[in-house]
Amino acid sequence: MMRRDLIEEGDNPDITMERRKATFSVDKMAAFIHGGEHKLKRRREILKFVESEADFRDPIPPEFMSRQQRLENNTRKVVAMTDKSDVIDQSDFFEEGMYYQSLVMGRDLHPMSLHYVMFIPTLQGQTDDKQLDHWLPLAVSRAIVGTYAQTELGHGTNLSKLETTATYDPTTEEFILHTPSISAAKWWPGGLGKSCNYAIVVAQLITQHQPRGPHPFIVQLRDHKTHKPIEGITIGDIGPKLGINGNDNGFLIFNNYRIPRRHMLMRHAKVQPNGEYIAPSHAKLGYGAMVFVRSVMIRDQAMQIAAAAVIAIRYSAIRRQGEITAGSGEVQILDYRTQQYRIMPQFAKALVFLFAATQVKELFQKVLGSKGLTQLFMSPYFEKTDCLKSVSAQITGGNTELLQELHVLSSGLKAVVSWEVAQGIEQCRLACGGHGYSQASAFPEIYAYAVGGCTYEGENIVLLLQVARFLMKAAESVRKGNARLAAITGYLNEIGRSKCDLDSWQTASDADLIRDFEHVARKQVFTAFDFLQQLQREGRSTEDAWNAASVELCKASRMHVKRYLVKTFLERVSECKDPELKPTLDLIGRLFIFDQICAHMGSFRKECYMRDKQAENVSRAVYDILALLRPNAVALADSLDFSDRELHSILGRRDGNVYPALLKWAQQSQLNVTEVNHQ
Amino acid sequence: MMRRDLIEEGDNPDITMERRKATFSVDKMAAFIHGGEHKLKRRREILKFVESEADFRDPIPPEFMSRQQRLENNTRKVVAMTDKSDVIDQSDFFEEGMYYQSLVMGRDLHPMSLHYVMFIPTLQGQTDDKQLDHWLPLAVSRAIVGTYAQTELGHGTNLSKLETTATYDPTTEEFILHTPSISAAKWWPGGLGKSCNYAIVVAQLITQHQPRGPHPFIVQLRDHKTHKPIEGITIGDIGPKLGINGNDNGFLIFNNYRIPRRHMLMRHAKVQPNGEYIAPSHAKLGYGAMVFVRSVMIRDQAMQIAAAAVIAIRYSAIRRQGEITAGSGEVQILDYRTQQYRIMPQFAKALVFLFAATQVKELFQKVLGSKGLTQLFMSPYFEKTDCLKSVSAQITGGNTELLQELHVLSSGLKAVVSWEVAQGIEQCRLACGGHGYSQASAFPEIYAYAVGGCTYEGENIVLLLQVARFLMKAAESVRKGNARLAAITGYLNEIGRSKCDLDSWQTASDADLIRDFEHVARKQVFTAFDFLQQLQREGRSTEDAWNAASVELCKASRMHVKRYLVKTFLERVSECKDPELKPTLDLIGRLFIFDQICAHMGSFRKECYMRDKQAENVSRAVYDILALLRPNAVALADSLDFSDRELHSILGRRDGNVYPALLKWAQQSQLNVTEVNHQ
Repeated sequence: MMRRDLIEEGDNPDITMERRKATFSVDKMAAFIHGGEHKLKRRREILKFVESEADFRDPIPPEFMSRQQRLENNTRKVVAMTDKSDVIDQSDFFEEGMYYQSLVMGRDLHPMSLHYVMFIPTLQGQTDDKQLDHWLPLAVSRAIVGTYAQTELGHGTNLSKLETTATYDPTTEEFILHTPSISAAKWWPGGLGKSCNYAIVVAQLITQHQPRGPHPFIVQLRDHKTHKPIEGITIGDIGPKLGINGNDNGFLIFNNYRIPRRHMLMRHAKVQPNGEYIAPSHAKLGYGAMVFVRSVMIRDQAMQIAAAAVIAIRYSAIRRQGEITAGSGEVQILDYRTQQYRIMPQFAKALVFLFAATQVKELFQKVLGSKGLTQLFMSPYFEKTDCLKSVSAQITGGNTELLQELHVLSSGLKAVVSWEVAQGIEQCRLACGGHGYSQASAFPEIYAYAVGGCTYEGENIVLLLQVARFLMKAAESVRKGNARLAAITGYLNEIGRSKCDLDSWQTASDADLIRDFEHVARKQVFTAFDFLQQLQREGRSTEDAWNAASVELCKASRMHVKRYLVKTFLERVSECKDPELKPTLDLIGRLFIFDQICAHMGSFRKECYMRDKQAENVSRAVYDILALLRPNAVALADSLDFSDRELHSILGRRDGNVYPALLKWAQQSQLNVTEVNHQ
Repeated sequence: MMRRDLIEEGDNPDITMERRKATFSVDKMAAFIHGGEHKLKRRREILKFVESEADFRDPIPPEFMSRQQRLENNTRKVVAMTDKSDVIDQSDFFEEGMYYQSLVMGRDLHPMSLHYVMFIPTLQGQTDDKQLDHWLPLAVSRAIVGTYAQTELGHGTNLSKLETTATYDPTTEEFILHTPSISAAKWWPGGLGKSCNYAIVVAQLITQHQPRGPHPFIVQLRDHKTHKPIEGITIGDIGPKLGINGNDNGFLIFNNYRIPRRHMLMRHAKVQPNGEYIAPSHAKLGYGAMVFVRSVMIRDQAMQIAAAAVIAIRYSAIRRQGEITAGSGEVQILDYRTQQYRIMPQFAKALVFLFAATQVKELFQKVLGSKGLTQLFMSPYFEKTDCLKSVSAQITGGNTELLQELHVLSSGLKAVVSWEVAQGIEQCRLACGGHGYSQASAFPEIYAYAVGGCTYEGENIVLLLQVARFLMKAAESVRKGNARLAAITGYLNEIGRSKCDLDSWQTASDADLIRDFEHVARKQVFTAFDFLQQLQREGRSTEDAWNAASVELCKASRMHVKRYLVKTFLERVSECKDPELKPTLDLIGRLFIFDQICAHMGSFRKECYMRDKQAENVSRAVYDILALLRPNAVALADSLDFSDRELHSILGRRDGNVYPALLKWAQQSQLNVTEVNHQ
């Protein structure tokens, strides 16, 4: 017998009807999606704990608060969250840590995000032993709260052009931090505006009249007691943003502000008391930490499009509007093919991206071995200083080639996934009509939160071009016949077939579909490569050719990533042997694949790889699959195992009782505090 | 000599350098874009007036205000705007009225939007003479302020299923308005929450125990003196939204609320004192009013993507980041091909959409004759009651076939344009990196304002399917050989050619390019038609087949609209004989066209219409054109004639001095009022 545990008395009958139609157990599907029954059990334990704690409650929903109130509420909650972080497995930040954080903080982050994600890890990675002994306990116990100040008003990704200076004065053995122009003001660091009293500041080191490039310094910003900015420091909030307004991203301006010599973080480079500069022994590539952060991000992004799809599916099951056949009554809007077409591919993407994130994490684990991984994936909320000390953010060793491919892949995935997620969330929102525009739907905050991911942690186009640089090297090696490619790019060295084999979608094998994507990705990689060569033959410099070909290069990177997404999903689903789940998972995969082929149809038609009839079959396949998935739509949504607390959406409520809840929600509006506004 | 009047001392040197590079006069280009020197002169007169009036000033930028403050500020401004509307030509709401409103109100609308756009026009169109004499002067003088309450919590576009009842009681000669369930609460009307004291309420009329369908009633909501809701009425704000939060969209619940019989608007249907119902003599199709509203919307949408493109271009001219050639200094980010690729097609869309809106208006003028048009396009801010009385919102007569095609076209344009605009704005925002995420950029408000247009005034998918219904009838008539198609769909009845002629992009003629789009649109229309037929042959009912084919139907509508956009733009540009402007306008048109071909490449490759080499030429053409447009990018942005007031964007400032202005802006943040937040 199926478990029907999401059905409760008093639920909207339309949503109950949907749940009764399911052809699979939601718990079984949820366990498969989340990686096993144990994971599911842990999710529910953590949820229960968070729901039981009064400290985690919001006095009113945050969307009705002023920024000031949100900031204070978030500060209060993050302290409680850290104090009570024993509830999570500290070695699993990837899933448990992020889940716990999203349950407590919602989609607003908090003023201590960078304290945990950047300040503490930078102390761990960049201090010498003595510095570590001094600073880490202060940071971990929150005696000081820090952020990470690197970007400036006029400077983003290009570190070498930062303007803030740290000039060493050997007479007092101090560094003088200075902001030489407005464009040098530190800008954006989370928590910098009002909350933090310390920061790691990245500044151009100058000693013995020589510029030495950007280096990290630990800097006190505010008085320990009064919390007022210290003289020589101007500091403030950078103002409201598209989203995440419960965080006080800030600016910071130095006016010849002096700090002791030992406030330069000296694990790698050093400045002696006399001003002598000691360069680091070797430059380290922090692949490991970046792959880690990006795998967490990809999973987080997947959960955002997942939330959007769940909200849209559930709302579409209870919203009735219009008649398909005149006189037969208004239908659930989920019955419209156009509605299914808008929402269900977003659901498919959620699973595809989720599985890809897990796969990256697992590959990474393989490369690093379990010890490295445990350390890297450790929760930053972990309070045991001794243990944190041994964590190095710079993981090296392991299979270098695979690690490099993995780094490239994680960059590409971050770029592709964050963009597809943003697009998908908006489709889900638009599919909910007017109510989707209300903050009651949660779509505005989901979108604002997720779309930020297109820009931070490496701007997407910059990342795609990094991926392309790697792919072009691979292409060159293939052309030269000396390719040594690891698993992820090996397909570039294969021949493939010149025509697509697709007959009916029902008979297309996983292997054939993967081959189709490999063909198109390979084609695009070599198209970009040949274009680059051609431009250089025409007399352009390497750099100009690169710039002129850059749009084609981005296309190559995207197809490389999409081929990976297809392959990963099909492989993961092939591991599922449960006949109750398998057919639906297969449909989800086919939906993603055929929808993607449609999106890139121009590429699939190149050199007549795909014929007219095949192309038509592909788009018709999408419609057929949508119809087949329709009866299980709500069950699929339920299988993502979101609680009402996590979704934070009136439209996406488990019980489907949207309209009374909307009214109740609206009555809390700031404007409804009085019946008549004073004019 | 070129006019360089946008160059001023103290400007950012990078932006001045760009302006010096222009190959055309910005004023000449602006005059062409805006429809003549006179239009440009009027824009500047209106701007000067608005800038000179203290009443139109905001005490602080609205993004720093609470909702309460915004609402009050907007109310104050809209009163002043109406009082001073003599500055605009009252017969030109399409351009002058909308421009004036955007200058005064920004992108927040105002609590009286619906008073002018719906309440007064409904009084004009739906009252009998005696009612008009009573209500119109009150409304025009703002003795009463009204809104239009039609949609309900559970009901949107499907009027016939509204739940609110108006039951006639002949004993007291009153209607009893009642909200029988929560899903019947009126929901969304602008200004309803706190501002309006009247509403036109659409409710299901019941008289003599018979349901008579939805009818309009004028209803007092709040006390004239105290402004408190009257007993029997529950009313409030519906809470914060994605955008437009300076408007108090509201909800309204009736508890057996009685209104006099004569508060039913009785121009068409009537209820006699004894309860007898007199049906309207004939149902009228309000094509005219809808075409009017949509042409205004399309122009407004075009101006939003235009603003986004201008901001992104100017910012990209002063932002320097990264080096194309190592050691040669950081470049303006506008030099990156990827950046041009993100932004310039959005600029092209702005012009294409703007010209399409003007064309719709002109076609409409042709159909109606100038008198009807003058009346319909009259500013709703016009204060002369006598004149307003003679305006009927229901325009009939004229060339019925063309009017119908025009109505269909305007629906399709609204759907396609609003979607492309939303997408384009986000591309521009993302192209500005982190600063694009700040509200200082104005992108968040531009996006939130514009993307609402995908949902209101006809949900986009619903509209595309309406267009498709018309196209399917046209296709059927073509197949049957009895087609009588007016100008806009005539191409469906042509044969065309089976292969694309495109050689190099430089030699492609306008006629050839239009033919390419006609071919693809026609192909898609008949593909959808054949699919429908096939589904019916397979045994589906007409309605089920329609639903199953609906995604293909939407595709057909989109291509029909895109073909129109291409044709309209090329025709308008062909009227330009100025050799100073023509080459650049041609490039803009080619950029739009080739970018659109790339976006629909799958369709252009069908039946080998376009060969591999041609497809490659098309994408390479885009890159070539981007390089050719690069030197004129800032001059093109300037040619849209936005003032800093209208853009309301720190990143898009004329003077390019972005960084100091960002700092000054941020210092106004709510969180910076005190140095230390109380915890």
